[in-house]
Amino acid sequence: MADCIFCKIVNGEIPAVKVYEDERVLAFMDINPLNDGHTLVIPKKHAETIFEIDPEDLAAAIKVAQKVANAIKKALNPDGLTIIQLNKKAAGQVVPHLHIHLVPRWENDGLKVSRWEPVPGDMEKIKEIGEKIKAAV
Amino acid sequence: MADCIFCKIVNGEIPAVKVYEDERVLAFMDINPLNDGHTLVIPKKHAETIFEIDPEDLAAAIKVAQKVANAIKKALNPDGLTIIQLNKKAAGQVVPHLHIHLVPRWENDGLKVSRWEPVPGDMEKIKEIGEKIKAAV
Repeated sequence: MADCIFCKIVNGEIPAVKVYEDERVLAFMDINPLNDGHTLVIPKKHAETIFEIDPEDLAAAIKVAQKVANAIKKALNPDGLTIIQLNKKAAGQVVPHLHIHLVPRWENDGLKVSRWEPVPGDMEKIKEIGEKIKAAV
Repeated sequence: MADCIFCKIVNGEIPAVKVYEDERVLAFMDINPLNDGHTLVIPKKHAETIFEIDPEDLAAAIKVAQKVANAIKKALNPDGLTIIQLNKKAAGQVVPHLHIHLVPRWENDGLKVSRWEPVPGDMEKIKEIGEKIKAAV
């Protein structure tokens, strides 16, 4: 897409520190890293969110995410890995081209992203909402 | 795996509010929801993290995540969707059976999970780490 910065990275119009590339998928370093080794995996074909991406592009992207996750493990030996994929502004998506964040984690790295205390929900409400989602699948 | 609560949900030994199921994948409601409609997608075959899961199980799981994401959209009309997949305790993984969190988002829902302010990194360091990861793919 003409004004998409990730499409421009795919096309080579904007430079990036690429770590892996194949026909469908590109992986490159996030320039605003949450931790050392923060990498992004994107489908080359433009899709804004998980709602509309071609399922085969999505499957290819997650397989590359796994490949890169194992490369990060080998290269940086983190204690864990946080994977985040944000859809739409309400979720914090900044670039409207689907991207998968791979964020290496170390014990006590102090990163609060994607850490939460589990709080039990209202089971009646959960069942009611579950029925609605089930009916919509 | 004998002591895995998600394997027990797969086997029907522990109840869950299931929203979708096929040969490889199960989706059910998180009982500690971050927001209304918080759903988990898991491969039926036990795998602890993205590092060791069978790539075909992973691809099947992400395709189901997409299917359920669209069902959540249809059923609850959220403004966005946050997808999180945590690997190892250092990343905040609680149940050691790979699971993908689908968290519906609404504008101003106040949820801080997976929101961060982008801070530019040191490009020389990013390039250096990128070279290490690239070499390890």
